Amino acid sequence: MKIWQKSTDVNAFVEAFTVGNDRVLDLQLAAADILGSLAHTRMLHAVGLLNDEDLAAVQEGLKQLHREVEAGEFKIDEGVEDVHSQVELLLTQRIGEAGKKIHSGRSRNDQVLVDLKLFFRMEIENLVGNVQGLFDRLSALSETYRSVLMPGYTHLQIAMPSSFGLWFGAYAESLVDDLEVMHAAWNVCNKNPLGSAAGYGSSFPLNRTLTTSLLGFDSLNYNVVYAQMGRGKTERILAQAMSSIAATVAKLAMDACLYMNQNFGFISFPDHLTTGSSIMPHKKNPDVFELVRARCNKIQALPGEIAMITANLPSGYHRDLQLLKESLFPAFRSLSECLEITAFMLEHIQVREDILDDPKYDYLFSVEVVNDEVLSGVPFREAYRNIGLAIEAGNFKPRKSVNHMHEGSIGNLCNAEIRQAFRAVVAKFKFDLVNKSLNDLVR
Amino acid sequence: MKIWQKSTDVNAFVEAFTVGNDRVLDLQLAAADILGSLAHTRMLHAVGLLNDEDLAAVQEGLKQLHREVEAGEFKIDEGVEDVHSQVELLLTQRIGEAGKKIHSGRSRNDQVLVDLKLFFRMEIENLVGNVQGLFDRLSALSETYRSVLMPGYTHLQIAMPSSFGLWFGAYAESLVDDLEVMHAAWNVCNKNPLGSAAGYGSSFPLNRTLTTSLLGFDSLNYNVVYAQMGRGKTERILAQAMSSIAATVAKLAMDACLYMNQNFGFISFPDHLTTGSSIMPHKKNPDVFELVRARCNKIQALPGEIAMITANLPSGYHRDLQLLKESLFPAFRSLSECLEITAFMLEHIQVREDILDDPKYDYLFSVEVVNDEVLSGVPFREAYRNIGLAIEAGNFKPRKSVNHMHEGSIGNLCNAEIRQAFRAVVAKFKFDLVNKSLNDLVR
Amino acid sequence: MKIWQKSTDVNAFVEAFTVGNDRVLDLQLAAADILGSLAHTRMLHAVGLLNDEDLAAVQEGLKQLHREVEAGEFKIDEGVEDVHSQVELLLTQRIGEAGKKIHSGRSRNDQVLVDLKLFFRMEIENLVGNVQGLFDRLSALSETYRSVLMPGYTHLQIAMPSSFGLWFGAYAESLVDDLEVMHAAWNVCNKNPLGSAAGYGSSFPLNRTLTTSLLGFDSLNYNVVYAQMGRGKTERILAQAMSSIAATVAKLAMDACLYMNQNFGFISFPDHLTTGSSIMPHKKNPDVFELVRARCNKIQALPGEIAMITANLPSGYHRDLQLLKESLFPAFRSLSECLEITAFMLEHIQVREDILDDPKYDYLFSVEVVNDEVLSGVPFREAYRNIGLAIEAGNFKPRKSVNHMHEGSIGNLCNAEIRQAFRAVVAKFKFDLVNKSLNDLVR
Amino acid sequence: MKIWQKSTDVNAFVEAFTVGNDRVLDLQLAAADILGSLAHTRMLHAVGLLNDEDLAAVQEGLKQLHREVEAGEFKIDEGVEDVHSQVELLLTQRIGEAGKKIHSGRSRNDQVLVDLKLFFRMEIENLVGNVQGLFDRLSALSETYRSVLMPGYTHLQIAMPSSFGLWFGAYAESLVDDLEVMHAAWNVCNKNPLGSAAGYGSSFPLNRTLTTSLLGFDSLNYNVVYAQMGRGKTERILAQAMSSIAATVAKLAMDACLYMNQNFGFISFPDHLTTGSSIMPHKKNPDVFELVRARCNKIQALPGEIAMITANLPSGYHRDLQLLKESLFPAFRSLSECLEITAFMLEHIQVREDILDDPKYDYLFSVEVVNDEVLSGVPFREAYRNIGLAIEAGNFKPRKSVNHMHEGSIGNLCNAEIRQAFRAVVAKFKFDLVNKSLNDLVR
Repeated sequence: MKIWQKSTDVNAFVEAFTVGNDRVLDLQLAAADILGSLAHTRMLHAVGLLNDEDLAAVQEGLKQLHREVEAGEFKIDEGVEDVHSQVELLLTQRIGEAGKKIHSGRSRNDQVLVDLKLFFRMEIENLVGNVQGLFDRLSALSETYRSVLMPGYTHLQIAMPSSFGLWFGAYAESLVDDLEVMHAAWNVCNKNPLGSAAGYGSSFPLNRTLTTSLLGFDSLNYNVVYAQMGRGKTERILAQAMSSIAATVAKLAMDACLYMNQNFGFISFPDHLTTGSSIMPHKKNPDVFELVRARCNKIQALPGEIAMITANLPSGYHRDLQLLKESLFPAFRSLSECLEITAFMLEHIQVREDILDDPKYDYLFSVEVVNDEVLSGVPFREAYRNIGLAIEAGNFKPRKSVNHMHEGSIGNLCNAEIRQAFRAVVAKFKFDLVNKSLNDLVR
Repeated sequence: MKIWQKSTDVNAFVEAFTVGNDRVLDLQLAAADILGSLAHTRMLHAVGLLNDEDLAAVQEGLKQLHREVEAGEFKIDEGVEDVHSQVELLLTQRIGEAGKKIHSGRSRNDQVLVDLKLFFRMEIENLVGNVQGLFDRLSALSETYRSVLMPGYTHLQIAMPSSFGLWFGAYAESLVDDLEVMHAAWNVCNKNPLGSAAGYGSSFPLNRTLTTSLLGFDSLNYNVVYAQMGRGKTERILAQAMSSIAATVAKLAMDACLYMNQNFGFISFPDHLTTGSSIMPHKKNPDVFELVRARCNKIQALPGEIAMITANLPSGYHRDLQLLKESLFPAFRSLSECLEITAFMLEHIQVREDILDDPKYDYLFSVEVVNDEVLSGVPFREAYRNIGLAIEAGNFKPRKSVNHMHEGSIGNLCNAEIRQAFRAVVAKFKFDLVNKSLNDLVR
Repeated sequence: MKIWQKSTDVNAFVEAFTVGNDRVLDLQLAAADILGSLAHTRMLHAVGLLNDEDLAAVQEGLKQLHREVEAGEFKIDEGVEDVHSQVELLLTQRIGEAGKKIHSGRSRNDQVLVDLKLFFRMEIENLVGNVQGLFDRLSALSETYRSVLMPGYTHLQIAMPSSFGLWFGAYAESLVDDLEVMHAAWNVCNKNPLGSAAGYGSSFPLNRTLTTSLLGFDSLNYNVVYAQMGRGKTERILAQAMSSIAATVAKLAMDACLYMNQNFGFISFPDHLTTGSSIMPHKKNPDVFELVRARCNKIQALPGEIAMITANLPSGYHRDLQLLKESLFPAFRSLSECLEITAFMLEHIQVREDILDDPKYDYLFSVEVVNDEVLSGVPFREAYRNIGLAIEAGNFKPRKSVNHMHEGSIGNLCNAEIRQAFRAVVAKFKFDLVNKSLNDLVR
Repeated sequence: MKIWQKSTDVNAFVEAFTVGNDRVLDLQLAAADILGSLAHTRMLHAVGLLNDEDLAAVQEGLKQLHREVEAGEFKIDEGVEDVHSQVELLLTQRIGEAGKKIHSGRSRNDQVLVDLKLFFRMEIENLVGNVQGLFDRLSALSETYRSVLMPGYTHLQIAMPSSFGLWFGAYAESLVDDLEVMHAAWNVCNKNPLGSAAGYGSSFPLNRTLTTSLLGFDSLNYNVVYAQMGRGKTERILAQAMSSIAATVAKLAMDACLYMNQNFGFISFPDHLTTGSSIMPHKKNPDVFELVRARCNKIQALPGEIAMITANLPSGYHRDLQLLKESLFPAFRSLSECLEITAFMLEHIQVREDILDDPKYDYLFSVEVVNDEVLSGVPFREAYRNIGLAIEAGNFKPRKSVNHMHEGSIGNLCNAEIRQAFRAVVAKFKFDLVNKSLNDLVR
């Protein structure tokens, strides 16, 4: 049951090759596809291309299908090549001829385009939720361990006193900027391509503003050629935003692996959250963080993969773009899992509180002593030289207390301000508005 | 004259290797470095770490240096390793001991961080200006050629009627979304890292909120560990935003090369804007567009390069981050040139107006005919089958007029709406506010 | 049943996250894993760590398992985390205590290392076979169409006469160089890491030279730390070699899409090998070549993905390396399918024989005319200028025959030499030697 | 003086944009360009296209130019766009009309192709020399420190005893495999594209076999379309081979940074080879290794950049390919410097000999103890469990000697075999044969 199949049989090899993994991947698009058709048919009715009776039948049929998707009962039958065909097939089986009319004024191209944008919005909302979960955990840990000092490194050399309050809080704040980038991706996704047909518009008297409103989009991809050009571009921008979150999480995982190493020994986790070795019975391996790191680095490579697939394709649709589903879809789940398991691991983190008692960290405080001299009137370069000579001569004696009070420092973490910034960026997404529109559609 | 040089001579080989291209690249940071010092010293005075007299001398010295940078007279002397050392050296030569005090409460790390953010803001403003130039040209061309039809392709197969109005307008609208992404990069850049010292804060009673305001930043990187973590991350996010613009321009260049090809022959350019061949006297080669395409694709590879350099580095500064200047700085100029030369070329574009007279394009109109039948009541799938059979039988006769009226289609380009969307995204940057702050600093 | 599981239960979430897709991916390693154990146990016997009886039982059990893998009957049971555990489990169920002894003197690390190298060798042999299939097809087509001229383009501008003989033959020769690169990957794969244990060797009196010989490896990874370092590196080098083949195939696919475009119209394919459009009944879309191009471009991104995952990992095993299976394994099948379907499509290619009758190609022959003048004594630059002026004046008249006779030109394709070069590079792999060793092991 | 310049002036902006950095980059091609012309003109003479007198003048003129290049006296004049024009210009100024004849039977395309291949061969020879320097240093250090034990890590957890002998030796052996990959790149470079003209051959009676022999190429790129297709492909394959060396060096640099960290403290370097901090007087920063790591990671991104620029370009020359010089040429110098400075640093490395006296490393020996039990007859899984329980109970007592004797282990490093393997792969390049041919040409 392939729509493009006319009189000639397509070679089975070619068919298997071109369908690829679509039947599996497309399942994730089912809800979006039905939402798009709900809006499209209401628009067809509004412009006189669908009568009242057909509209009623189609809407009821689609809403029923949406409930089946929500209940996990929807599947793509053997021999049906994609989700769009399956929806149309089921609809026609159930409500008859009216089912065939839902494709009027629409091409497979803009249908997929709008499905993807709706799907991406859902995935972004889900990711932002998982980012929030990790943010909250990090922010809480920063407060809990605000007084526990640890060494700060530059060039991987022992440099200056830091704290677990700073360390956890830094990753929390990193997620704020990551959501700025994700919000740009959201803005790009949140424009309606439906009505662009095969990328060149159509002679139907479509009302694209209406579907834009019904689907809760903020605006349109006006130009129909541009609407089509958004395929590949949207995926790349979204992957870049995901890579930004992934980079933050990967760095946290790298730190965790290093700090769990026995030479550092700053943090540990309960036995049941680490794994042993088949040949080294004493090991507590940080497999979770290693795999989080690897998965997030894989996501960091994703925008480049998408760029490679789409580079130098002239304007207009190419089948190449189908392959992007295979690259991008699994990344949503992978990144979500990384965010969740990282938050879960951090719930059980054990922090060593006496790290700086070890004399190898005494030099951490050298800058403190330089600054003390400066605050008492010695020019900086001179104070610096004095302490340097004292260290060279082995006379350096640290004062092991830290009195940093400026914004964002050990004694003044500004976690409240960071939480406020996080809330502000999340609020910009306006998920509620979108969800209200979608709820209205399926009700 | 290296600040970290104490009593031991550093091997010349090591020195040359570590300094790298910094002396050349750093010249671009001179204005930013001076601005940062102007703000930092005013803050030092406000918190009592610089007296009135020293402040006056330092401010006057720095403003003078800033004028020299503006006039193109600033350079980094032989034997001085970077711009920061050069500024401090000149200042101390001119105003004496007070010049040495400007580094109090600051590390080279946060000094570079703030320099980069100030520099990136300037470069973003410049890029947005160049994007605007190209946008305006494309938008105007879309209006000029709104009635000139051309073939629209899918799968590189002749598909449906398109127009030069759509083609130019699509690339204009693409730049709107690209600026959404750039605006996220701007938001990430527009937060103040100054005061984070070497990434762990300091015991000085700094007022980071004051420097934030003086430098026109929208907010702070609060957490000092996160402020340092922004190095590499900011560059990657900015490179991603640049890659989005680059992808749009590269695609336009690819189209241009294809349409200049004699098998298409849709557009051409005057002889003096194309190049000939040493062995094929009849050729008019689109070298400019080929190089625009190549340069933009190189920029598309830039985020991956930055990610590769920064992947799996634990938190805290690493010298690796220095190398990012070498990757990113030349890309600003390269992308600006691509934007400018593309706008320049388009100023001279010659559009062929009779393309669709060629009978090979007759099939373009098949969908029009299908839709005509549908609008007169025939079910879509049936109309589709009818035309398919007519084409197979060789009986297909097109109606060569296009009557597309919905939003964003050939007859209703929505260029006004697109221009409005462009203005709206540019307005979000609020360059004026930033520039007012900086002007206040140097006056 | 996890070997590292001691007394504490590992959290189910952690377990699912860390096992990942291993149970599915590992199935592909089953044959290799058994081969490795066959060799390892013979070596254990040779050095006195396994008695005659145990050896006999283990060998028979493993050979039986190998037959089951060959027959497609091997699977990994629910609750068993990987292929290695499954093999050991089945063996112990069938032959008792002796089954537990096969892991002596071995770590999971070197076991996986050798499995991967054996598996990669098999995949390389398979890929080379598919490359050969495509090579033979291209070479034959080059001969068949040696006299059919087509335009040659530079800068996508009509440049000089070319031929289908050249076009097909070029891609054939490209595969020769691709196999040079693949042969380097083969050399890197064809060294034995077994006996490196967890990457630091062991106190067992292993005879690594013996397993090297039994498994048909050309040599050893001597240094045990290096043997472990090969993980990730081998994958990256292999992916690079695959990307080279992929780049050739992707370029051919790009050409095919362009030449099937109606503005070119150089080649076509029977209807049953192309696909139609749901809305444009006249189209013959080159979906196969578009997907071949996209898949091959995805493979071109693979080395960068592997590099991103492995960058900046210190020496020694990290769990991150497990994820590389997920990146690399599907690429083998994808590339094989691309090679096969490309050869299959080319079997049905239809070549247009009268392309150059179209007058737009007349200028193709301008260089021929320049060269005629030069051969009759006119200095090149002067002849060049003469023809240029004639073309500008519209007086240019081509001679539409081509008389190129030097090596590799239209009249002298050197396909025999290219076939010879192909055979020579394939011969360097010496697959026979390897297969003989493996056959001896399982017999 | 641009050869393609006819009667129309090319706009200055366009000219500056298209010439780009070629005048600087091309200087590196001067020697290769002259060598190519020396061979090409001898071939022209052999086939009767250049008379004896002209040949003599041209050869003498070119040899003189070659001496000037060798002496560093060659430069590209203002207003001359590339090296090829400069050579032809100088030659014509000096020997008159004969100078204009050297371009007969050649296009700028195959001229650049052969220049690049000759240049790449020289750069490969240089890189292999620098690899040898580092290999020798590593191999010698492995011998020197063969008895110094260090901890071996897996998952960054203390795992098993290792040694500096193993650590240095592993990186030495890694370079052997890297040269395997480089040898494939050499094979791809070592084929002659000259005579392919603009990528479609010519009607001149060229003898490509003769130039192949004169230039010391191993074989030809036979098919002229393939010869042109080698542009971009050769660069990518070469960049991949360079990335393999770079990955080895970057990993070594990462290890060095980690081992210089005070929590590890395994190695150190004299003060004059490390750098201090402007604010932390006690630091010895490993800037050299950080920059080596960053530069090598940048080189790891290079193949992806080249692939991005060349992806989806149809066959035939495109100006995009010019930009690859800008990507690849600086990488040769950068990688050479990384190899040299790494060897230089290692010359001064200070190794700590008492690392394992620290009791935190006691568990390193757990596997040794397990293996002792196994060798005395206890089944592996049981011995493993015994030691695990002892460790959990705090009763574990290590035996701190290591008795590993199998191939490649601590007690049997096989450095002689590794050196032999290194010599064998270097020998495959046959640099002598190539250099003999080139010397014959210029003498």
